[in-house]
Amino acid sequence: MAAPLVISLPRLRTHIEALSRFGRNPDGRGITRSCWSPAHEQARAWLLQRMKEGGLSTWVDEAGNTFGRLGNGGPAVLTGSHIDTVPNGGPLDGALGVLAGLECLQTIHESGLRVRLPLMMAAWSDEEGRYAGLFGSKAFAGKLDAKDIPNLRSADGERLVDAMARAGFNAYDAPKARCNPKTIAAYVELHIEQGPVLESANASIGIVTGIAGISRFVVELFGRRDHAGTMPMDRRRDAVCSAAACILAVERIAAAGAGTVGTVGEILATPEAVNVVSDYSSFCGEFRSSAPSWLTEVIGQLEQAVRLESAARGTRSAVTWRPPEPPVVMDDSVSQVLADAASVIGHDAVRLFSGAGHDTVQIARLARTGMVFVPSVGGRSHCPEEETSLIDCGRGIETLLQGLVMLDAS
Amino acid sequence: MAAPLVISLPRLRTHIEALSRFGRNPDGRGITRSCWSPAHEQARAWLLQRMKEGGLSTWVDEAGNTFGRLGNGGPAVLTGSHIDTVPNGGPLDGALGVLAGLECLQTIHESGLRVRLPLMMAAWSDEEGRYAGLFGSKAFAGKLDAKDIPNLRSADGERLVDAMARAGFNAYDAPKARCNPKTIAAYVELHIEQGPVLESANASIGIVTGIAGISRFVVELFGRRDHAGTMPMDRRRDAVCSAAACILAVERIAAAGAGTVGTVGEILATPEAVNVVSDYSSFCGEFRSSAPSWLTEVIGQLEQAVRLESAARGTRSAVTWRPPEPPVVMDDSVSQVLADAASVIGHDAVRLFSGAGHDTVQIARLARTGMVFVPSVGGRSHCPEEETSLIDCGRGIETLLQGLVMLDAS
Repeated sequence: MAAPLVISLPRLRTHIEALSRFGRNPDGRGITRSCWSPAHEQARAWLLQRMKEGGLSTWVDEAGNTFGRLGNGGPAVLTGSHIDTVPNGGPLDGALGVLAGLECLQTIHESGLRVRLPLMMAAWSDEEGRYAGLFGSKAFAGKLDAKDIPNLRSADGERLVDAMARAGFNAYDAPKARCNPKTIAAYVELHIEQGPVLESANASIGIVTGIAGISRFVVELFGRRDHAGTMPMDRRRDAVCSAAACILAVERIAAAGAGTVGTVGEILATPEAVNVVSDYSSFCGEFRSSAPSWLTEVIGQLEQAVRLESAARGTRSAVTWRPPEPPVVMDDSVSQVLADAASVIGHDAVRLFSGAGHDTVQIARLARTGMVFVPSVGGRSHCPEEETSLIDCGRGIETLLQGLVMLDAS
Repeated sequence: MAAPLVISLPRLRTHIEALSRFGRNPDGRGITRSCWSPAHEQARAWLLQRMKEGGLSTWVDEAGNTFGRLGNGGPAVLTGSHIDTVPNGGPLDGALGVLAGLECLQTIHESGLRVRLPLMMAAWSDEEGRYAGLFGSKAFAGKLDAKDIPNLRSADGERLVDAMARAGFNAYDAPKARCNPKTIAAYVELHIEQGPVLESANASIGIVTGIAGISRFVVELFGRRDHAGTMPMDRRRDAVCSAAACILAVERIAAAGAGTVGTVGEILATPEAVNVVSDYSSFCGEFRSSAPSWLTEVIGQLEQAVRLESAARGTRSAVTWRPPEPPVVMDDSVSQVLADAASVIGHDAVRLFSGAGHDTVQIARLARTGMVFVPSVGGRSHCPEEETSLIDCGRGIETLLQGLVMLDAS
């Protein structure tokens, strides 16, 4: 058993506040720190400086992943997360996991504790997917396809190649960030839960059992354009009404599952005039679940519901499914070490699965992985109100620190 | 009783085909002839030429209304419609009424028939409201507010002032188009039905009893932005799902009325990312009915439904009503003349109300008004498929011609 190590909550708070200034919106609420943006690159420079001050050796790889390291030699125990945010996001999603890694490695460095294996921390590029979700961790896992790179663009059309060039990177080199799996002993990511489970359970620590799979789809409704004043209700083929009924079907199907969610987050095509019955409407949505079987079942359920709702209004319909992202299961041995670590420092840990995707999904291809969650106030995230108490942040980081030391020793 | 007059169907067909070439879309289907556009101004020049050839004196007023006249002296029997179209509209909405007026006046001129009162025809500006609905007829009726003019814009932001200037008009002069009511004895507009009532009744002639009133509204739903993967279904405040339920409430309320319609034709705000639960959604819709009482009742019905649907999902809501457009009743004496006219030439006329608004709404402020409808194939309009058989067009124009002569003699 390693000696008890004490992290610095004041330093953590200072770091959280300092990092949250990069990309702070003009209104003072919310943070927009998209990967490769000037705000992100300033945050990267700030992080490199903090890591050096913390006693770590540092480097940035070809995919823009930022690393810090303590100790030399073979396979490293790795922790990390990301410092990019969604537009108008909060101060903790990603950032807390990176600053937790810094706090753990700096605390170990300052304690003079000798580690058996090197310890490493990473800030992965573009987790939030402004250009490509999980970009950096995917490149690190060797799963980045070089021929996709010229086609990657942001929603507003900017090419990844141009964004990376502006930040001083050559996007075509990103696949070179591929890591030799033998160099990674284990990976643990600390992250805010982004949901209400821990808060409801009054627990400070969550040990993640797995990450939900995602099935994304586009529903299209083909109606008939008619004059809104003259076509009787019972003779219409209204694509907007069909779309509304299909959106409620997504809600209904997701609510009927256990621990499953379904969301319509993007309406792609809508009518433009109030005096015309709509001939076309489409929307994009997703289902998430830890159960692969449910993600298979919903395909048939949604398609049937869309068919029925559409037929009831005389419209035609089409459902297009994107390639599914299957659920990822965390490594039992790592999860047990993390639960033991929480126990050592006196916190009960709740087991839960993650509805959100994380870089862990990619690193799980390389190494044994586990995740620690800390509670999100009100379950909120991806918004300015995103919050975790400093006490809970500290308990999570203590658990991570204890876990890293135990993994190092195991 | 006036002598029987015979219109020329071949000439009518030639005119319909010629006019439909102005603004024909590049794909050969559909017509986009927005008021003040080059296509519209070319169509106006073509119409002026045809009216002159038909023996009419012609002029264009300050609001861009195009007139033709037969005979001199006081109050005129007026007919008219419009030559502008909706984007990707059809060849008959508006155009048929204008060409019907031309056909009637030219036929009378060529017959040598002496008319007691002058006969006039008009093509009213911007009936479809690219910049402002019923613009020309409203100006003619003296209801155009000069101080609104600088603020009138198309949906894509172009100012009416600039559009009219490009077409050679000074928008600020448009209120000068105001007509002295004493100069108009009666107004009759022929128009395609744009609905399926006449076709279903197997009737060629409709006599319009009134024009539906319209209540337009904006529904806003205020939800809570959450991560789509982590917020359980039963704890969401999803603005998109609330909006979908409210859209179906519009459909349900309209379907429950008698001869009433309700349409959501514009979704104003929608979420932008598939992985975020939406915090705001809004849409614009309308109800139409010939019954003022129903248009009053639906205010409470919609507001209650929105409140319930929104509350069921924990969202807040707001319904904003635009100033209502009350139903307009046609003049009984004019309608009776039109029914008698149809009877004289051997066609049974069906009485029906118009779900679509027409320039008649404005001219009814000045003079006794009536409308003749001809059937729309499949009830379609505001689309490239808009169609009325030449036979039915001819029967409608014969009725209009007979009606104008009877109104002239009455």
